[in-house]
Amino acid sequence: MTKQKPSIPQGTRDFLPIETLKRNYIFDSIRNIFQKYAYLPIETPAIEKLSTLMGKYGEEGDRLLFKILNSGDFLKKTTNDDLINKNLSKLTNQLCEKGLRYDLTVPFARFVVQHRNDINFPFKRYQIQPVWRADRPQKGRYREFYQCDVDVVGSNSLLNELELIQIISDVFTVLNINTITKLNNRKILSGIAEIIGESDKIVDITIAIDKLDKIGLDKVYEELRRKNISDDSIKLIEPIINLSGTNEQKIDCLREFLQDSDIGLSGVDEIETMLDYSKLFELNTEIEFDITLARGLNYYTGAIFEVKSKDYAIGSICGGGRYDDLTSVFGLKDVSGVGISFGADRIYDVMSNLDLFPKKSNSSTKLMFVNFGIKEEKHCLPLLAKIRSSGINSEIYPDKAKIKKQMIYANKKGIEYVAMVGEDEINESKIKLKNMNTGKQSLLSIDELILALTF
Amino acid sequence: MTKQKPSIPQGTRDFLPIETLKRNYIFDSIRNIFQKYAYLPIETPAIEKLSTLMGKYGEEGDRLLFKILNSGDFLKKTTNDDLINKNLSKLTNQLCEKGLRYDLTVPFARFVVQHRNDINFPFKRYQIQPVWRADRPQKGRYREFYQCDVDVVGSNSLLNELELIQIISDVFTVLNINTITKLNNRKILSGIAEIIGESDKIVDITIAIDKLDKIGLDKVYEELRRKNISDDSIKLIEPIINLSGTNEQKIDCLREFLQDSDIGLSGVDEIETMLDYSKLFELNTEIEFDITLARGLNYYTGAIFEVKSKDYAIGSICGGGRYDDLTSVFGLKDVSGVGISFGADRIYDVMSNLDLFPKKSNSSTKLMFVNFGIKEEKHCLPLLAKIRSSGINSEIYPDKAKIKKQMIYANKKGIEYVAMVGEDEINESKIKLKNMNTGKQSLLSIDELILALTF
Repeated sequence: MTKQKPSIPQGTRDFLPIETLKRNYIFDSIRNIFQKYAYLPIETPAIEKLSTLMGKYGEEGDRLLFKILNSGDFLKKTTNDDLINKNLSKLTNQLCEKGLRYDLTVPFARFVVQHRNDINFPFKRYQIQPVWRADRPQKGRYREFYQCDVDVVGSNSLLNELELIQIISDVFTVLNINTITKLNNRKILSGIAEIIGESDKIVDITIAIDKLDKIGLDKVYEELRRKNISDDSIKLIEPIINLSGTNEQKIDCLREFLQDSDIGLSGVDEIETMLDYSKLFELNTEIEFDITLARGLNYYTGAIFEVKSKDYAIGSICGGGRYDDLTSVFGLKDVSGVGISFGADRIYDVMSNLDLFPKKSNSSTKLMFVNFGIKEEKHCLPLLAKIRSSGINSEIYPDKAKIKKQMIYANKKGIEYVAMVGEDEINESKIKLKNMNTGKQSLLSIDELILALTF
Repeated sequence: MTKQKPSIPQGTRDFLPIETLKRNYIFDSIRNIFQKYAYLPIETPAIEKLSTLMGKYGEEGDRLLFKILNSGDFLKKTTNDDLINKNLSKLTNQLCEKGLRYDLTVPFARFVVQHRNDINFPFKRYQIQPVWRADRPQKGRYREFYQCDVDVVGSNSLLNELELIQIISDVFTVLNINTITKLNNRKILSGIAEIIGESDKIVDITIAIDKLDKIGLDKVYEELRRKNISDDSIKLIEPIINLSGTNEQKIDCLREFLQDSDIGLSGVDEIETMLDYSKLFELNTEIEFDITLARGLNYYTGAIFEVKSKDYAIGSICGGGRYDDLTSVFGLKDVSGVGISFGADRIYDVMSNLDLFPKKSNSSTKLMFVNFGIKEEKHCLPLLAKIRSSGINSEIYPDKAKIKKQMIYANKKGIEYVAMVGEDEINESKIKLKNMNTGKQSLLSIDELILALTF
């Protein structure tokens, strides 16, 4: 074996303890709130059949799937002609039967259909797992990253949408992030397309409107024209795209504009109900009905959500919506669902940049015994066992190294307290406890020490 | 898109909520104990460079690595000759640059070397992540499974070995599994090989001895002969393989047998020290010094460990040892480490089969409000918010379905309490609470309900 300079693939990351503890703080906070709202966890394998994944994310998505080379004779199904002619897309299917999970939504749909007889509907599930995309890596975009999804399938009730807003409010309250939650409804967008006589172009229209924030009004019009939306139609939409005022004013205005579209009006009703119900709580997120919110994904059919940090610009940190037909591709019709996904990596970036992580963590190490040698360590080990069984994360430096070296270790690890037990302390049955932040030292019995460090 | 009967790849698994909650109980228990002993978490990417992984697990391991097809023109580096001649192993390296993590040890060694300047030595880390192996799936063997590794690198102290024994005892105490922990030391095996004059065959000898449990004494002798160990040598080993008695008796016997081997005696000293120190605690695992324990992995150089359930036969549920040279392949010499790995999937099987999971979990749902309609749900929603903010996992059935349907849902989900609030209860500001196990009903105020469900 030759020596290698070690490195990891582009777009992937190692996480040091300090980073992992912070990431786990985010995951644990989100998980606790999902559970408080009665969602239960599932897990699906990282490896799915390519037949499950292909064709679900568009052409771009198919290209960005990580594909796994078949084991054994991977050329078994190929022909020399295809190989020599580099018939890549055909060959891919022959070389690979499996791929890495691209998101948690398609595996969830597959899961619901596959296990429909073991599932209790309405099925409220959460799932926190990594996904992989062979995207070009860039700042804030990784090839391996976590999604935290929460969905309910098998219920049309708007209470589910409402609950997702409460979850958004609770999660970002716990994480200390000021947010704005944008709401819209695909039915309203369908209604608008219907009113202006461009129903068949609803996808193009929503994708164009979705870009308003990023590319500005003129470019949106340009894109609409490029998609063959007539100038008359664009003129008709104009007041809608420029809609302003309070949520109530927008609703009034739309109710008039959409008066001849049943689907449009039903979308307005849904938004109004959600806003009405949301007043039952003190929500800690600003709710804005934003008609330009469309979200690119085509499977949404009702409410759509998007959450942004108010104090740090990084795009959306949570988003989702209602989908009426996600499971039908796997053979199960008429199962409506609604869900949102929290972007843990972006949330991490927001919290890092705004310094929002709590200073102390229950997961880090609180106490270290200095190691003075064999006699002392034999005395300290049972004390340490007692301290640990009181739930205090603690350790003894494993070697009789120089005191300075041991102290540097404790400092670097961010350990708050150091215990010193030499011959005097052994004779007195005491422990000298040093607070590493203040430098204060006290001579304590084992019980006093545990009391001091537990409260 | 054509409809598909959904399924997942051979050897992978979906986990339903009930299974995921139990698995999380295992992971959380293990994590808490790792942290109590001052180990800190790291994470490494699922995808590693093949150059990091290949050649580290033997020929068999290379074959069992899941390899990821390069993006874009994956035939870029291949020649038509190699393709047509099916030069598979050469082609694999040209088609694939990345693979899935096969264990947590090699990525950890890579991590230590790569981040050596950001690491605080002695580095006590734990890592709980899935690994992938293209093994033939069979009962209890999966292609995607979790490892829970805990290691300390950069310290030669036997206190680390001792601590791992304490961790084993604590983990299986919390999980309620009766265990036996077998100890041995590779230095003793080296000493034995030296004494019988077969030092160069130490690997063959340990691998053969390691199989004693599985294949019996005669087959072990057969294998030793096949590896060209002389009959004289085998005769010499005989009393060692058949060693019996207490740990102390075994040590006395070996000390005599190994009197002319420095390395052998140093192994005996280490075992003796570990057994001596372990008497400082009340350990909840039976400790047995077992000279036939060898563990197949060649990188172990000192202590080796293996833990088995005493009440359910399933092979080892935890194992590990000391390795003196794991990082040198990545360019960092003289960093000794010791660690163990808990097999979460086997632990799950033991606990399932012995019915050891706690009946109640903090992660499941405790209370459901029955949904009687719009007026009632509007009354209940703020009550539900208050209950949730008291930390009680709870929900309201999202639709005004038939009561029976709602009750079946609660029952299937294992929800303990159901709250009913109709017109009478609204007028009285009360909640009718039903215990789903006993059938008992009580009329409570919101504060009384929270008190009843929190304590």
